[in-house]
Amino acid sequence: MFDVYAFATPNSVKVPIALEELGLPYTLRGVNVRKGEQKTPAFLKLNPNGKVPSLVDTPESGEPFVLTESAAILVYLAEKTGRLLPVGGAARARVFEQLFFHASGLSPAFGQSGFFQRFAAEPQPLAIERFSSEANRTLGLLDSILARNEYVAGEEFTIADIAHFGWLWRRGFPNITFSDAPHVARWYEAVEARPAVQRGIARVEALVPQD
Amino acid sequence: MFDVYAFATPNSVKVPIALEELGLPYTLRGVNVRKGEQKTPAFLKLNPNGKVPSLVDTPESGEPFVLTESAAILVYLAEKTGRLLPVGGAARARVFEQLFFHASGLSPAFGQSGFFQRFAAEPQPLAIERFSSEANRTLGLLDSILARNEYVAGEEFTIADIAHFGWLWRRGFPNITFSDAPHVARWYEAVEARPAVQRGIARVEALVPQD
Repeated sequence: MFDVYAFATPNSVKVPIALEELGLPYTLRGVNVRKGEQKTPAFLKLNPNGKVPSLVDTPESGEPFVLTESAAILVYLAEKTGRLLPVGGAARARVFEQLFFHASGLSPAFGQSGFFQRFAAEPQPLAIERFSSEANRTLGLLDSILARNEYVAGEEFTIADIAHFGWLWRRGFPNITFSDAPHVARWYEAVEARPAVQRGIARVEALVPQD
Repeated sequence: MFDVYAFATPNSVKVPIALEELGLPYTLRGVNVRKGEQKTPAFLKLNPNGKVPSLVDTPESGEPFVLTESAAILVYLAEKTGRLLPVGGAARARVFEQLFFHASGLSPAFGQSGFFQRFAAEPQPLAIERFSSEANRTLGLLDSILARNEYVAGEEFTIADIAHFGWLWRRGFPNITFSDAPHVARWYEAVEARPAVQRGIARVEALVPQD
């Protein structure tokens, strides 16, 4: 049985989307990051890093297994089911290449760009310029990949698409648009239209209090 | 046959270390990032992202396979040899958790902290404070893991240790010390003492022109 601790965030949404794609039932447990609930002692037991998402996999017998880092959770679920990740060769390596390009490149650029545009206590113009440029540069790299391939790691939909989708779904935070990234726009529309993706998004959006 | 395009950088060093640990022969090809060689048209064919390292795996017959992203290369080499990465279960998931914690957490914090301390054209004090704090926070998380485990993902040396080692080897760039991280210090000394690690470091250091 899976419990997913999450909110409507770029990294959180990846896990419900993967579980929906894989047809695995799960309980979604909201962690309201707008109220700082990811820093409470109760949540820090599930992730000392103080970030959502966190997955708890409780077997029929035995101890619950707690796993953090959205991309590590995607790999875990894909390997558990034998789906959304090719079993070997170049196709598999391309998925990991994109997972790490997302984790180390696109994701931090989008996150820091949004932070310095919106939340820095005083303007830090060079930081804004640095991360805004890097967000657009990484988007351009993704666009050149999607000019050649149907999906980010080749011709099949994989967990690498789910990883990239999370931050592209929240591209408004760093004020990113697809105006110069037509191939990303084409891919995004196709991914967003998948019924499992729509269910995953709807479930995390329902965690946000309507007040 | 493996060709590794690299320099004496935090991410580059991981690949020769892994190849030395695995006993795989390779040719190391220097890309002098101090001269911007990672942005030349020739190198961009090996990595459009303009970053070292890049691995070229040329089979006895067939096309060369080019792979980027240091952690993706570590996974590729580990899976190719069946070593340095547990084959399943919690032990395997912990390796991926640490690979992604490094790629998305510790590594960008160390890199941005060093950048804003050393290279920003004008002082950006809030950016320095943000990334310096984050570098120390992620180091503290690693220290708490190493207080419990011999290695970063458990009781065995894995590719996750190689990943973290790269940036901790270059901790001088963001002015990080181990003074408040005794468990990291213990682990670092043990990893650095491994003969394969010493060979990997010596080979990338030999790429730096002595002038």
